[in-house]
Amino acid sequence: MALEYDNQQINQTLAAITVPTLILDEPRCKRNIARMAEKARKSGARFRPHFKTHQSHMVGRWFREAGVTAITTSSLRMAEYFADDGWDDITVAFPVNVREIDRINTLASRIRLGLLVESVESAAFLAQHVTTAADIWLEADTGYGRTGVGWHQPELAVKIAQTIAASPLLTLRGLLSHAGNAYAARDQDTIEKTHAETVSRLAGLRDALTGAGFSELAISSGDTPTCSAVENLSGVDEIRPGNFVYYDMMQVMIGACTLDDLVVAAACPVVSIQPDKGRIIVYGGVVHLSRDTYIDAQGRTSHGAVVLWTGDGWLPVVDSAYVASLSQEHGIIHADAEVIERVKVGDLVFVLPAHSCTTADLLKGGVTLTGEPFSMMTYT
Amino acid sequence: MALEYDNQQINQTLAAITVPTLILDEPRCKRNIARMAEKARKSGARFRPHFKTHQSHMVGRWFREAGVTAITTSSLRMAEYFADDGWDDITVAFPVNVREIDRINTLASRIRLGLLVESVESAAFLAQHVTTAADIWLEADTGYGRTGVGWHQPELAVKIAQTIAASPLLTLRGLLSHAGNAYAARDQDTIEKTHAETVSRLAGLRDALTGAGFSELAISSGDTPTCSAVENLSGVDEIRPGNFVYYDMMQVMIGACTLDDLVVAAACPVVSIQPDKGRIIVYGGVVHLSRDTYIDAQGRTSHGAVVLWTGDGWLPVVDSAYVASLSQEHGIIHADAEVIERVKVGDLVFVLPAHSCTTADLLKGGVTLTGEPFSMMTYT
Repeated sequence: MALEYDNQQINQTLAAITVPTLILDEPRCKRNIARMAEKARKSGARFRPHFKTHQSHMVGRWFREAGVTAITTSSLRMAEYFADDGWDDITVAFPVNVREIDRINTLASRIRLGLLVESVESAAFLAQHVTTAADIWLEADTGYGRTGVGWHQPELAVKIAQTIAASPLLTLRGLLSHAGNAYAARDQDTIEKTHAETVSRLAGLRDALTGAGFSELAISSGDTPTCSAVENLSGVDEIRPGNFVYYDMMQVMIGACTLDDLVVAAACPVVSIQPDKGRIIVYGGVVHLSRDTYIDAQGRTSHGAVVLWTGDGWLPVVDSAYVASLSQEHGIIHADAEVIERVKVGDLVFVLPAHSCTTADLLKGGVTLTGEPFSMMTYT
Repeated sequence: MALEYDNQQINQTLAAITVPTLILDEPRCKRNIARMAEKARKSGARFRPHFKTHQSHMVGRWFREAGVTAITTSSLRMAEYFADDGWDDITVAFPVNVREIDRINTLASRIRLGLLVESVESAAFLAQHVTTAADIWLEADTGYGRTGVGWHQPELAVKIAQTIAASPLLTLRGLLSHAGNAYAARDQDTIEKTHAETVSRLAGLRDALTGAGFSELAISSGDTPTCSAVENLSGVDEIRPGNFVYYDMMQVMIGACTLDDLVVAAACPVVSIQPDKGRIIVYGGVVHLSRDTYIDAQGRTSHGAVVLWTGDGWLPVVDSAYVASLSQEHGIIHADAEVIERVKVGDLVFVLPAHSCTTADLLKGGVTLTGEPFSMMTYT
């Protein structure tokens, strides 16, 4: 898919930037959305994208234009934010927080709300306190080891399902897992094996539930590395990738995408040049980029890759520079003499974040290359 | 100073919390402010506290009640936020970002604005573009190695001072340094030596400037470890500590404070208990607590210490538990069986953050123990 840019317009957008700002490449973003929607369609899986990376009504609407009708969020507050923009089928993919029961009931009365349960205690609490219909997904731990009923604990799964079934308002929809272990992969083969194992373990739990009388249960799985690298996602009924909407340097290193797929960069004003130390200091620190790091192709621990705008998007990445460390507001870029020569105080340097979810969350909005400002949800 | 609490009121405050929330202990906060103001007074140094940790009008007003009239911020936006609440003498302790020149001029026309300069380029830019009077501080690097004119570069300091002097609107006020190297200290003696070295190096640069005809220059230095641990701060004209307003576990480990001085905790709802894994999972992840860590007294790398409310503030800290890892929304607490026994799904666990600056920045406000909600600056 050829992407078109108006470089004069982009230069105007960049000239107006005065503080650390998230810049979003809209054509690349829409291409990532279209590709993933197409893969879901081909695989026969429902596409329920996770919206925790972009947290933005604007980007959400691009998904809607691509035919998406059901989404995933990582908190009830985020579900409320998207319900306010017309989304009416939302799964909160986080173990239900019982302290939010009043807002759960309010939201469930407005939209089709899916909740995640992974203990008898939470299931019993919901069965007792919900006042309106809600979907329940049983969270399964298929090897990541964070939360969820272990794939080797079918009896617990059945017990939770029975607790849910005691409430006429709750409907068990299926089993859901987040194979966060796929993030440890660095090659296609490992990702495919992890996916096959995830699906098989979910199917095992589903068989146990079917045997106990729970029928028509769906299987929901599919993070960004898996959904990007695995060609055939059949075996799951629903996929929920999120990060792919922007991707980031971590995903490049995993092999889930290429540099050409990256959507966001943090534009950071240069405030100091230190040729003797081989460093460029930018306005862009922990409160903008986050403390997250990745190990780059040269083996350096980096908060982000560095781009100097040359009119071809986020290419080329400057391999001889990287974001080596951060203070609250300072970003410390190590760079060779040739790069330092190209930059002066007051210029913008573009940082391709290690982890786009946390960088976007901190910058809380930004601007598209064509100059359209966009906001993100706030917690207040 | 005896602190008084109404435990019934506190229980009401905590009962109303449903999501990760910053809880602020107002009496301890005011005690920290009063102590530091008193130390500055005794030392004969102007107290220009850094407001980057709390970023809150409410806490700023407590400083004003303690007699503070001049403050420090880490960005121009933060200076604008506090100018909007009546502060009229603000130093932005970050190398001047020339892309913000229009807003610099606007703010300088409203208040007494201090800017940080550490290169001839930035000095020349300001000399050419300011349209209203502004104070200039020459940033000195006294050993931290982040930004600033090196203490061994008196010629550069003079050259910058001369560039500043070329503008009738700019007034060189003095030399400013941030001895971030004090954060590496773990004992009083090291902090005192670092402070003495900082003062001596600043004095050396001042001598060079005085020799070149620049008189009446002040020396501004003093971070939280230094201002907390060093008894006698004479030798500096101004101190700018910030973190002390809340302190945090990092400062406890440095020895700058004790657990009894900690002001903020993140209240996190428990969403999952995993006795077999020795873990408690809370709603409270990277987007709430930040990725920052410290090494605790047991040698564990931790995102925060754990407190279960017992009616005595943030005491006692539960030594057999700590925040071992974080996802975007999940906090993973390792705990022994005794602690796990005390907690159930839906309870609140309190996390004393590794680094209160970043945790507060993420939570963007919170509530005092007496239930008063407070907001912080937003970047949008």
